[in-house]
Amino acid sequence: MEGRVSDEQAPRVGVLGGTGDLGRGLARRWAAAGVPVVLGSRDAARAQEAADALNSELSPDVPVAGAANADCARAAQVAVVAVPWEGHAALLEECRDALAGKVVVDVVNPLGFDERGAFALPVEQGSACQQAQALLPSSTVVGAFHHVSAVLLLDPEVTALELDVLVLGDDRAATDTVQALAERLPGVRGVYGGRLRNAHQVEALTANLISVNRRYKTHAGVRVTRP
Amino acid sequence: MEGRVSDEQAPRVGVLGGTGDLGRGLARRWAAAGVPVVLGSRDAARAQEAADALNSELSPDVPVAGAANADCARAAQVAVVAVPWEGHAALLEECRDALAGKVVVDVVNPLGFDERGAFALPVEQGSACQQAQALLPSSTVVGAFHHVSAVLLLDPEVTALELDVLVLGDDRAATDTVQALAERLPGVRGVYGGRLRNAHQVEALTANLISVNRRYKTHAGVRVTRP
Repeated sequence: MEGRVSDEQAPRVGVLGGTGDLGRGLARRWAAAGVPVVLGSRDAARAQEAADALNSELSPDVPVAGAANADCARAAQVAVVAVPWEGHAALLEECRDALAGKVVVDVVNPLGFDERGAFALPVEQGSACQQAQALLPSSTVVGAFHHVSAVLLLDPEVTALELDVLVLGDDRAATDTVQALAERLPGVRGVYGGRLRNAHQVEALTANLISVNRRYKTHAGVRVTRP
Repeated sequence: MEGRVSDEQAPRVGVLGGTGDLGRGLARRWAAAGVPVVLGSRDAARAQEAADALNSELSPDVPVAGAANADCARAAQVAVVAVPWEGHAALLEECRDALAGKVVVDVVNPLGFDERGAFALPVEQGSACQQAQALLPSSTVVGAFHHVSAVLLLDPEVTALELDVLVLGDDRAATDTVQALAERLPGVRGVYGGRLRNAHQVEALTANLISVNRRYKTHAGVRVTRP
């Protein structure tokens, strides 16, 4: 168990799209750190399977639960949106009522890929985060975890991630909550990185990290230096 | 003197807009490391004054020269574009012929500021780097040095910068040249960060670093983690 702070203070985190690599990787690390987690998926049975796999790997104090996305959103105190960009708007519309009044953490990178690598897709609202805030006017959207490698999250050999999570949002209490959640991941520091209007470039920077990965054969992340 | 690699291999660097804080800061560090530098300015006398000030501070082996921007561009083997965004296009048009066949390093961040802080400005071509490449079809444009703090560059107490410079471009020889120039700055690692089409978010990320600076009272930079 990697729990570093009081487990009593951790909100119940619902990971929408939690059977994808990034969602599952975040859930895995949070569960190992004593955070109560509900995995969401379009298919409740698939969510339960993924939860069972994490429970047998980790035997966490609080077992990971699995549910359909809408039930996951209802159960969550803080929801993490980890679906592919193609399904982003539809998922948020489906879960709008269940997410009202809650902090919603958007981790989605709107990227395209061609023979020259990854590139940022244009988003009408400016960024995935701003699209989420537009679709969820009664929720408080925070952007975070854009640069965290799912491969590293899921690798049992990696005990500490050694990177910073840039946390973006317009509400101080919400960004503080998400910085604390980031710091439940071993080796991670949560760093406030600006308002939602500056989320686009943080999402898009993932394309650059993919270029770094290809050139240097690595799983790149970011540290913010603060001399 | 901070020279770490053979001075013979350093190209003569012309810093266009070299009397601004970032241009002067880069020139100062390069001159101290044995790189031949020409400072450019709209006003040749002002450029000479700034060069004289660096020469009396540093007594470099190769004295820094000062010149009007167009003469600076002619004298440069590698040119660095460090003018304010407002003057970017006009300067490049003025220097187009002098820059033909050369590596041109664009360090410009197109940012706006209001009461909520900094934000990225839209650029018709996608980014300052792409605007430069469009205006200089016979030059090889590379983006770099976007996140380097002028305050730290100019501070005599700061002996090493301890940050990475993301280097963006479509030509491997040119990005290699600029990575080597980045590594002439003490404490700096030059990291290939993708193609010019992914320059926008690197330029825009400077707005986030300004948010970090305000929140944490620092001069933030970036390190790319490569586990």
